Amino acid sequence: MTSGGEDQMLAFVALSVETLAARLGALDALRERIGQDPGKWTVAEVGDGNLNLVFIVKGDIGSVIVKQALPYVRLVGESWPLPLKRSFFEYHALMRQGARDPGMTPEIFHFDQAQAIIVMEFLTPHVILRRALIDGRELPRVGRDLGLFVARTLFRGSDLSMVTREKKADLALFSDNVALCDITEALVFSDPYFEAPLNRHTSPQLDDLVAELRRDRDLKVEAQRLKHLFSANAETLCHGDLHTGSVMVTDAETKVIDPEFAFYGPIAFDVGMLIANFWMSYFSQSGHEERGERHSMRAYLLHTATEIWDVFATEFGHLWRTERKGILYQASLFEAQGDALGAEQALDRILDDIWNDMLGFAGVEIHRRILGLAHNADFETIADHDMRACCEAKALKFGRHLAVNRSRIRSMAEISALAERLEKEQVK
Amino acid sequence: MTSGGEDQMLAFVALSVETLAARLGALDALRERIGQDPGKWTVAEVGDGNLNLVFIVKGDIGSVIVKQALPYVRLVGESWPLPLKRSFFEYHALMRQGARDPGMTPEIFHFDQAQAIIVMEFLTPHVILRRALIDGRELPRVGRDLGLFVARTLFRGSDLSMVTREKKADLALFSDNVALCDITEALVFSDPYFEAPLNRHTSPQLDDLVAELRRDRDLKVEAQRLKHLFSANAETLCHGDLHTGSVMVTDAETKVIDPEFAFYGPIAFDVGMLIANFWMSYFSQSGHEERGERHSMRAYLLHTATEIWDVFATEFGHLWRTERKGILYQASLFEAQGDALGAEQALDRILDDIWNDMLGFAGVEIHRRILGLAHNADFETIADHDMRACCEAKALKFGRHLAVNRSRIRSMAEISALAERLEKEQVK
Repeated sequence: MTSGGEDQMLAFVALSVETLAARLGALDALRERIGQDPGKWTVAEVGDGNLNLVFIVKGDIGSVIVKQALPYVRLVGESWPLPLKRSFFEYHALMRQGARDPGMTPEIFHFDQAQAIIVMEFLTPHVILRRALIDGRELPRVGRDLGLFVARTLFRGSDLSMVTREKKADLALFSDNVALCDITEALVFSDPYFEAPLNRHTSPQLDDLVAELRRDRDLKVEAQRLKHLFSANAETLCHGDLHTGSVMVTDAETKVIDPEFAFYGPIAFDVGMLIANFWMSYFSQSGHEERGERHSMRAYLLHTATEIWDVFATEFGHLWRTERKGILYQASLFEAQGDALGAEQALDRILDDIWNDMLGFAGVEIHRRILGLAHNADFETIADHDMRACCEAKALKFGRHLAVNRSRIRSMAEISALAERLEKEQVK
Repeated sequence: MTSGGEDQMLAFVALSVETLAARLGALDALRERIGQDPGKWTVAEVGDGNLNLVFIVKGDIGSVIVKQALPYVRLVGESWPLPLKRSFFEYHALMRQGARDPGMTPEIFHFDQAQAIIVMEFLTPHVILRRALIDGRELPRVGRDLGLFVARTLFRGSDLSMVTREKKADLALFSDNVALCDITEALVFSDPYFEAPLNRHTSPQLDDLVAELRRDRDLKVEAQRLKHLFSANAETLCHGDLHTGSVMVTDAETKVIDPEFAFYGPIAFDVGMLIANFWMSYFSQSGHEERGERHSMRAYLLHTATEIWDVFATEFGHLWRTERKGILYQASLFEAQGDALGAEQALDRILDDIWNDMLGFAGVEIHRRILGLAHNADFETIADHDMRACCEAKALKFGRHLAVNRSRIRSMAEISALAERLEKEQVK
């Protein structure tokens, strides 16, 4: 696995706990943050999920995270190759997101494209949001912070805001992130809806429901229409994998990490994926009640899903009125003609479309986390399989309702009421 | 204006009638088609419209067309620069269209990127379709040929058919055609709807109607929503400028030329632009009746607009059933599950969306040809300005109806009836 080229890039070599200090010890970007003597650094490897190597490097004055892509999926091994270039896309997405919503992404100290290494801020005492939600923590800021994050990054990355020449060049840059889009295209939109080899589900408890969903024509057509949007509608730079496992939190701070799936796609995609994960947490809560009842937590989760949408829509409208400087819906056609209401009418249409598509993306995200390859800890950590299946069944029905009825659903209040009805339902 | 680089490309120099044979005389691709002795070639310059140099080169055994881009808009001069690279996009679009609907584009004999020269088949005795329609010629093949052309090129250039990695790489390639997309973005979707400097219209006859359209909130919002689709929905490789001036015909043959505006955009864009030009021809016919009545010609034009849509939809459905081998709406989810009707349901949804958007693109195309910079000969060749304005006014109202009511219009029969009602109307 070598990378040649004019820059005399060195062959890719995976870092290890033993070699890291020697290999990176000359970098000023690290030395000035963690300590001048690499001999005193301590290095610990932590999993970051499924794909990459992640190390915490500590010295006498500070700590950093060193993240390195591998030429394959870490969790599966060399039999599933995956391009190192995902590190390049992650780096560039982090830089853009950091500029579009300052303070919401980790600070980046160093990037080495050939070695697929990003050195960044060690977030402490942050924890992964998904883990906090499983633990029943009601984090006060995440709804507002994440609503603002999606509004700002998605508005400012689109032709509503950017110079179109720069947007088209950036689209060309990110269009090479084929391998990671391919994962989403297959694992999110298609595999869950037929007997694909990588699928798994809680069996035999869910077998009948899974078979029913895989026979569900309206659902499958909607999933494919959403895939069509995903693959064709290059509206803005999306995070691409914006779930509660890509968010780190304290009570006072929210940070969004891991945008290696970044691609130009629909505004609604990030919003729907994100909110879906709060709804999944909602349906998983009864599986975690042995550690205390979760009535308040459930209310918090529905409230937070609603808050993300409301803050998103409000901030999107604010940016529409104050930063709409791209080639679309120009002020010269509306405000400059004394017709500000024309711009408001257009905004309403756009938010209506995003709402509709967002619900669809949320629906399929819920399905793929229960029927596909990449399950999430909300359900997976429920040890009792009957209980887990009961939680998952409610979420599956909820997701189906969203995906198929999305154009006829009017409000978050309606969706919260649906969730509450399903939660009370006795599953056979 | 030089192009450097590893290939030692020579500086760009515009061809002339005097220099062409000397500069291209060594090319086997020309010599074997028109004659081995360039001294015997005759060279004539013909305008191709607004942008480029076009020469007919004849020798003792044949003729070819030599088309060369200039670093500016030919019609305007050096004050309006335009990248030579449009020749590169035209060449690549011609190659793809030729593969996707063989025989419908001119044969290409030679391409020189640095000199922005394409040498291609001299189409004779073909004439420009727009000219033939002005002359009242009822060409028997164009409806079917063009319906098939749009279905085949647009289906086969999308993720319905292509290997997605190849589609994404091609999207990156064409995303650099910024300057020509910029022309469409401004001249088609925005300029007609406010007092932009390059606009003109038949004045004073149309002044009131033009002012009314520029105050029309619903129309302006729709035009911008269509621009949003144009700029974001990278669904397939579009021709980008598919009007009746980009089609050459005989009674027996139809050829599509000049795809230098090629870009990844909505399937509906090419379809709507194309059909709009038949509708404009319809409304222009009464301006040409001094050379004979045009009842039959008007019926022919409405019939042909309908035929293009019907053939497009039928062929698109045929390709859907026989060539749907891309990542979208995979057979593994439908036919392979014994659910061919699921795939039909998805097809109906897609065609419904294309229909809806196609009508919108047609509406704004009609407007920009009457209100914007680039008028067309259908109306421009009507010498009597009162008569011209009368024709244009009907077309403007028709376009407004399509653009604003597109989601509620059901059939071509309804649209033909609308056109006939407007045609009979007395314009004040």
